[in-house]
Amino acid sequence: MTETTEARTRDDVRRLDREDPLAGFRERFLPIEDARVVAYLDGNSLGRPPSATLRRMHELVTREWGTGMIRSWERGWLDMPERVGDRLGSVCLGAAPGQVIVADSTTVCLYKALRAAVALRPGRTELVTDTDNFPTDRYLVAGVAEELGLTVRWIEPDPRLGVTVEQLAEVVGEATAVVTLSHVSYRSAYIADMAAITELAHAAGALVVWDLCHSAGVVPVRLDATGADFAVGCTYKFLNAGPGAPAFFHVRAEHQRRFSQPVSGWMGARDIFAMAPRFEPAEGIRRALSGTPSVLGMVGVEQGVEMLAEAGLDRVRAKSTALTRLAIELSDRWLAPLGLSVASPREDELRGGHVTVAHPRAAEISGALIDAGVIVDFRTPDGIRIGLSPLSTGFAELWRAIERSREVASGLLG
Amino acid sequence: MTETTEARTRDDVRRLDREDPLAGFRERFLPIEDARVVAYLDGNSLGRPPSATLRRMHELVTREWGTGMIRSWERGWLDMPERVGDRLGSVCLGAAPGQVIVADSTTVCLYKALRAAVALRPGRTELVTDTDNFPTDRYLVAGVAEELGLTVRWIEPDPRLGVTVEQLAEVVGEATAVVTLSHVSYRSAYIADMAAITELAHAAGALVVWDLCHSAGVVPVRLDATGADFAVGCTYKFLNAGPGAPAFFHVRAEHQRRFSQPVSGWMGARDIFAMAPRFEPAEGIRRALSGTPSVLGMVGVEQGVEMLAEAGLDRVRAKSTALTRLAIELSDRWLAPLGLSVASPREDELRGGHVTVAHPRAAEISGALIDAGVIVDFRTPDGIRIGLSPLSTGFAELWRAIERSREVASGLLG
Repeated sequence: MTETTEARTRDDVRRLDREDPLAGFRERFLPIEDARVVAYLDGNSLGRPPSATLRRMHELVTREWGTGMIRSWERGWLDMPERVGDRLGSVCLGAAPGQVIVADSTTVCLYKALRAAVALRPGRTELVTDTDNFPTDRYLVAGVAEELGLTVRWIEPDPRLGVTVEQLAEVVGEATAVVTLSHVSYRSAYIADMAAITELAHAAGALVVWDLCHSAGVVPVRLDATGADFAVGCTYKFLNAGPGAPAFFHVRAEHQRRFSQPVSGWMGARDIFAMAPRFEPAEGIRRALSGTPSVLGMVGVEQGVEMLAEAGLDRVRAKSTALTRLAIELSDRWLAPLGLSVASPREDELRGGHVTVAHPRAAEISGALIDAGVIVDFRTPDGIRIGLSPLSTGFAELWRAIERSREVASGLLG
Repeated sequence: MTETTEARTRDDVRRLDREDPLAGFRERFLPIEDARVVAYLDGNSLGRPPSATLRRMHELVTREWGTGMIRSWERGWLDMPERVGDRLGSVCLGAAPGQVIVADSTTVCLYKALRAAVALRPGRTELVTDTDNFPTDRYLVAGVAEELGLTVRWIEPDPRLGVTVEQLAEVVGEATAVVTLSHVSYRSAYIADMAAITELAHAAGALVVWDLCHSAGVVPVRLDATGADFAVGCTYKFLNAGPGAPAFFHVRAEHQRRFSQPVSGWMGARDIFAMAPRFEPAEGIRRALSGTPSVLGMVGVEQGVEMLAEAGLDRVRAKSTALTRLAIELSDRWLAPLGLSVASPREDELRGGHVTVAHPRAAEISGALIDAGVIVDFRTPDGIRIGLSPLSTGFAELWRAIERSREVASGLLG
């Protein structure tokens, strides 16, 4: 590496920041008041807080909760799960109104979605997922299969990629009730082919439940266009809604009058305050609700969605792709000579919002990077995850982070 | 009613406020900035925000989320469900550490608790609950029975009281898997006899799942002493944790190594970040967790519990009893002549933290009361619920509220 090349590239990166149409959004997050932090590369685990969210939460607590009190339920809180869900569906998920609701955690939503989907395919005996899916997804698939007496067909994907249509074609058939996969792999960031996979499952008469945790807010999702049946996902990553913010639940319009889910609570009833003797589910997506939804959590989701709406998801995706491409280039140049290898797809169209770099000592390196102010994520067994949240991350920040990573890694490994 | 009597009683009530050892807590809630509000008598639906909660949330968002970012999970967030659960158990529920966790909504927790309890009683075919139980509870009991092929034995309580031990004795037997009841009735405020009911159920070999929504934080609960098996409840009422704040889940120590619940997610796994191929539940209460818990919500619970700890639950109960007794006295004097009748137990030891007043036109009267600044709750079919949150409600406030209620009701009915 000559100084000339470094200087040139650093200038290039500065220009990327200057020409970034989304650069202004970086100022709209609360500051990181920790001088040791060089770069935050973990917005795909926990997105940073928008300043607007702090203001809105203050207003919510003082005005709506403190002064409106119980009356605020009738003044906008009760319909928040649908209202915020509709915005999320329209801005990020390619879903027309009435199909998305904000509720619970991803785990609880996924449990409900799997149970609902299986119930719509009586007589079928198999669930399909993959061995590299996120733990919650695998645990739930195994658990639901056990409680309902179904069989799981496990696909074993290439860990540096993800499940392919060809792999799926080998296991999907007339016994398949439900296929459930992550749209973007939490490890490799591989983007599954939602359209082709959904089409394949439908051709076999099966339904598809998508986990959108790592795509919502960074990779445009086309739920309506691809015919996806159910989808769930979280809001505390690229949607910046806050730690443990509620998840979302999508049910395609055509299933809404027939689907049921087992956690039937008062918030999912046709008339909440009728306190009726028997459960009658609400007509539409609202029947996916169970208990009282977290208002503070939904406020965080709302602010995150509105910021993405303003930025425009296509521009977010374009910046995300530019950031992950730069991360790969710099990793190849500076980290590969130290034995760290890119474990994410190199084709832009196959890669989501993060880049994983693999090394047998990844756990140790990740710890050292965090100590050195480069906040990354370790993912077992050997992945260092570089998450690049487009609204809060800059190109020069990423440059400094990989530069610092090279120093740290060469200190450890050299 | 002579002026002399009114004046005397108003003075008595002022003295009650002056002598109230908990009076100072009223200043520790955010102000109601609405001059039209005469009294807030709905803290049993949504407790008011403690000022400390607003400060703590600001700190959480700026410092822990904004600056600590993902690192805050390791710096205290991850063990919050257990840490806050332990405090809640010790301060309000009579439960030794390691048996209570903060998680999900009451509905989701109750679903898990019912499924867990049924699984511990294989071969038994009946669930027992009552027709006056809260809707979510009834819906879930019916739903769980349907999905597992069980039968529900419905007890029909006196609606102005609740389920008695004698009624229960008629339906509990060797077929009973689980008895699930509310400790305090959401309508009448009747306190069920937790010790005798639990003993009766256990004698028949059944387990008991208690819903503590209307007792947590106002009626001291003795989970350990009574041998209760499972319990769930909400925190946005007398715990003042905020709209849609997370619920709590209790499992008695002796069941912890054997119980399982169906929503098996990564947060309930033995080693969260092992991302293990198969689900292995955590050893203790943590296996009741499913997805990522709401940190903002848990902060609200923590603040609410600490305020109650400082007040002392015995003093809270004493003030609660004095408030509900005053509400009954004033209702008898001023509202009964207008046809409104007390529909809650008159014996202090049988009455929880609210008083229900019944009238066939209760819906209309409740609406008029709210318009006149007396914030009460209507509960179908004929109940006006007067909730009296001991830390935020004063005796003179209650006096003014019932006085105003008399004016409003006589305007409507007179």
